[in-house]
Amino acid sequence: MYEGVNASEGIGIGTVAVAVEPDLTFTPHTVEDTEAEKARFDKALETFCKKTEAQAEHMKTSVGEAEAEIMYGHVTLAQDPELGGAIKASIEGGTCAEQALTETSTMFENMFLSMDDEMFRLRAADIADIRTGILAELLGREVVDLSVLPEGTVIVIHDLTPSMTATIDKKNVAGIVTEVGGRTSHSAIIARALEIPAVLSVSNACGALHNGMTAIVDGSRGLVIAEPDEKTLAEYTQRREDFIAEKQALEAFRGKPTITADGFKKIMACNIGSPDDVKGALDQDAEAIGLFRSEFLFMDAKSLPSEEEQFEAYRKVAVALKGAPVIIRTLDVGGDKEIPYLKLVKEENPFMGYRAIRYCLDNADEYKVQLRALLRASAFGDIKIMVPMVTCVEEIRAVKDLVEVCKDELREEGYKFNEDIEVGIMTETAASANIPDLLAKEADFFSIGTNDLTGYTMAADRGNDKVAYLYSWYYPAVLRAIKSIIEAGVKEGIMVGMCGEAAADPLLTPLLIAWGMEEFSTSAPSILRTRKTISQWTVEEAKELADKAVQCTTADEVKALLEAAAK
Amino acid sequence: MYEGVNASEGIGIGTVAVAVEPDLTFTPHTVEDTEAEKARFDKALETFCKKTEAQAEHMKTSVGEAEAEIMYGHVTLAQDPELGGAIKASIEGGTCAEQALTETSTMFENMFLSMDDEMFRLRAADIADIRTGILAELLGREVVDLSVLPEGTVIVIHDLTPSMTATIDKKNVAGIVTEVGGRTSHSAIIARALEIPAVLSVSNACGALHNGMTAIVDGSRGLVIAEPDEKTLAEYTQRREDFIAEKQALEAFRGKPTITADGFKKIMACNIGSPDDVKGALDQDAEAIGLFRSEFLFMDAKSLPSEEEQFEAYRKVAVALKGAPVIIRTLDVGGDKEIPYLKLVKEENPFMGYRAIRYCLDNADEYKVQLRALLRASAFGDIKIMVPMVTCVEEIRAVKDLVEVCKDELREEGYKFNEDIEVGIMTETAASANIPDLLAKEADFFSIGTNDLTGYTMAADRGNDKVAYLYSWYYPAVLRAIKSIIEAGVKEGIMVGMCGEAAADPLLTPLLIAWGMEEFSTSAPSILRTRKTISQWTVEEAKELADKAVQCTTADEVKALLEAAAK
Repeated sequence: MYEGVNASEGIGIGTVAVAVEPDLTFTPHTVEDTEAEKARFDKALETFCKKTEAQAEHMKTSVGEAEAEIMYGHVTLAQDPELGGAIKASIEGGTCAEQALTETSTMFENMFLSMDDEMFRLRAADIADIRTGILAELLGREVVDLSVLPEGTVIVIHDLTPSMTATIDKKNVAGIVTEVGGRTSHSAIIARALEIPAVLSVSNACGALHNGMTAIVDGSRGLVIAEPDEKTLAEYTQRREDFIAEKQALEAFRGKPTITADGFKKIMACNIGSPDDVKGALDQDAEAIGLFRSEFLFMDAKSLPSEEEQFEAYRKVAVALKGAPVIIRTLDVGGDKEIPYLKLVKEENPFMGYRAIRYCLDNADEYKVQLRALLRASAFGDIKIMVPMVTCVEEIRAVKDLVEVCKDELREEGYKFNEDIEVGIMTETAASANIPDLLAKEADFFSIGTNDLTGYTMAADRGNDKVAYLYSWYYPAVLRAIKSIIEAGVKEGIMVGMCGEAAADPLLTPLLIAWGMEEFSTSAPSILRTRKTISQWTVEEAKELADKAVQCTTADEVKALLEAAAK
Repeated sequence: MYEGVNASEGIGIGTVAVAVEPDLTFTPHTVEDTEAEKARFDKALETFCKKTEAQAEHMKTSVGEAEAEIMYGHVTLAQDPELGGAIKASIEGGTCAEQALTETSTMFENMFLSMDDEMFRLRAADIADIRTGILAELLGREVVDLSVLPEGTVIVIHDLTPSMTATIDKKNVAGIVTEVGGRTSHSAIIARALEIPAVLSVSNACGALHNGMTAIVDGSRGLVIAEPDEKTLAEYTQRREDFIAEKQALEAFRGKPTITADGFKKIMACNIGSPDDVKGALDQDAEAIGLFRSEFLFMDAKSLPSEEEQFEAYRKVAVALKGAPVIIRTLDVGGDKEIPYLKLVKEENPFMGYRAIRYCLDNADEYKVQLRALLRASAFGDIKIMVPMVTCVEEIRAVKDLVEVCKDELREEGYKFNEDIEVGIMTETAASANIPDLLAKEADFFSIGTNDLTGYTMAADRGNDKVAYLYSWYYPAVLRAIKSIIEAGVKEGIMVGMCGEAAADPLLTPLLIAWGMEEFSTSAPSILRTRKTISQWTVEEAKELADKAVQCTTADEVKALLEAAAK
């Protein structure tokens, strides 16, 4: 059994095919006729671009538009004049095209790798992929072609590049195993889009697994089992069938309202990180956006995004949602989220430091840019403003005052906006769970951020393995915090939602129903499943279970109770 | 007005005398007769030691035994064979005694300074002080003599060395101002022992203040005011009188029980950091030890202290308290407390990491050594075990199980101990304030650690200036946490105390009385003052105020209410 990163869920069972990457070695040599060599390079580049464009075209229908964009991006990058210019300058010095391409592209690749940022690492991978493609053209060799695999193949490969993925025929591939890559790599994104179970970063997978072996790829748990015994095979075959059956069963919930077994209406919303995620959310039948993290606008930039840039991003989402609510969280910088150009000082305890609304209220001019952009976008849909990290009434009052200042300015300037825009709180601090009644009088809605709420309540950093056992919402202290927030919001008559990971925990769903929570905001793949869980409980049954749960004294008791009651 | 470190409280008003340090410059030269030069050094050393011993003897009565120990320590250090040997070796090479002393002692001083630790920095200061003393002897010059100052002098000096302090005649010195030194420097310790107001680390004090100037030294707030106008002088004269009057009035509470105005008995306890602090606690009339931090045993050591060493330390305190309760907190490593030899990994958020009981339960064998030592010491007094950082019932149960294992072992081995030793919780996490009812069923007592409780509730690191405005127990979220812990403990019938800094906050005292808190544990200087505050409130009055306080929605409202009601 081998462990890796669970990059695309589901169970795949099939026969291993270790994809051997083409031999692209060459002997560097000097060239006399540099003009001819440059022409040879141009020819290879042109062929590469044509093939890639064809792959991209194919991907549009086989995988999806967003994924095809990656391939189009390769073409653009390959045609980058700076890269091409540097390669040709090298050829002009008498270097052969293969060597010029390799040296120059490696230099660019390393430059990107040296920038400690996920975005640049992805660019580095793109460059490596382009190098392989053009080099194969120059040497007249074929790159890995995954289009002709027999049905039921488990692809084992060092790294799955976007260009290889483009050739995959989904119906023949049972699973994917790679030696590198994380949950945000292109391979992971495409495997999920193709719905192929995938386990990435399995060290030495190409050495350990051999052609013809039977292998189980457990993409949900990140496990690969080679040559399973009969019992294991039977077990996983059953699990695979269950997974598929459940997935199909969930289709019955598509396009349906979210209601409890006794007919109480809830809202299934989706958490997104950028406007590009809206499509996935709507594809999975989200009724609203429960959390739009605005950090992407700040993290992908080199300086503070302008009001115009922010407005465009918010408007885009608002329009796409066609009037359904879009809760946008204002900048949550600090904690574990760094934005280099803000030049924040490294803190001893960043989670208990200068972050989110603390930073924003201290930099009100910057914050007003975001609030103005949000207000302006509110003319195009039902945008709601959510304030993170609130610990006291003073903070939410200060934000509301700033919103009023922005409204006055915009009115003066003749902009349209929603005069009644809602301003709510992401209830995620221990303090917010102590004074939810006071906060509910100031806020238009609550959305419980269970990730931080769990961490702050238990004083356990979720990134710290040594205290991982304390990071659980089954501890009575956390359950009570959640309960007090929901009940205070319900009592005050404001909407209460949840946008932390706990919103997708089926064990917790009945408790949330019992306490009166209205909106469940999860990642896209959890929407239908959560809608189904909600449909399985009547409020009365849920309350009965919740009454028992609050009697428990330990996390194990809570979990055992909820597991026993799970439907 | 100049700002500095408030090192010794009180108001001093007087005439500035800038102490000029003696000219100890010399021209280095080579010596032929090295034997004679060594003898000259020995003579100077001997005279220095004799004078210092005489000063130490004088200090014993004028200041105190602990402070005299510092001077005796100088003698021991001056006679250190390694230092003396190195100096003489240098003289044997032909260097003059002055130069040999200066070079060698500076080398030792720098060595100590390079070790980033308060203890070593104090040793470095000692060496500098010794060098000055012996050098003055070699050159036949007098060191600063502070014994002949006129009455009402404000001493202004670059640094007050222990040897200078020894010559101070308390009745003539109104205040002390230095350019260097912190609250833990020798100067600060001795100024407090002499009860002379002192402000340290005032930059360029010797340049800015001149002989004959009138100066106010506000040792409580760390301010020096030169040439005050009449209004300021009158104001500070009044404040000085008030301070003295209050101090004298507090004497009326010495030896008295701690009772509310309507006769309800409370306990005034003291927080200590080592057995040496017991004397100060008893001098200030402590009725119990409410928090004995056991870290000193671990921090001052090079490896884990043995059961025997720990037993001795705990026994010493238990015996000194003559049967009065001694609450000893088990090892609170991590957070901001480092113990190098435990080799704990640097964490992203140490306050939310592997600390205190988390470390201890994970290293049960180490923890059992401490529990066994505590149990054995419980045969000599009323020792209670306090567990820090508890977030769940599971943790306190695990500690109690370990205590039972230790009891079995000790019984087997024939040791005596208190079979009914109490095991309580330092309630200081947000979780503990959410489930105080559950914890009260497991614990024999609670002691509220308001420092961490405030930090965790407000998600504000108390060491981080950027969020200092959020670190306040006047926020309703923190007040409610305190209230819920006290009321749950009272309901369950266990003792509830408080050992955080809030226990000494006179504004908070009536609320703590109202909610039913029994034990107030403060630093030694706050004991009489807190006993006085307690005596000023009836439970009924306190409850009336508390009812209003819990209606407040902001920290400012809370503080204003409490200030208006303060007696």
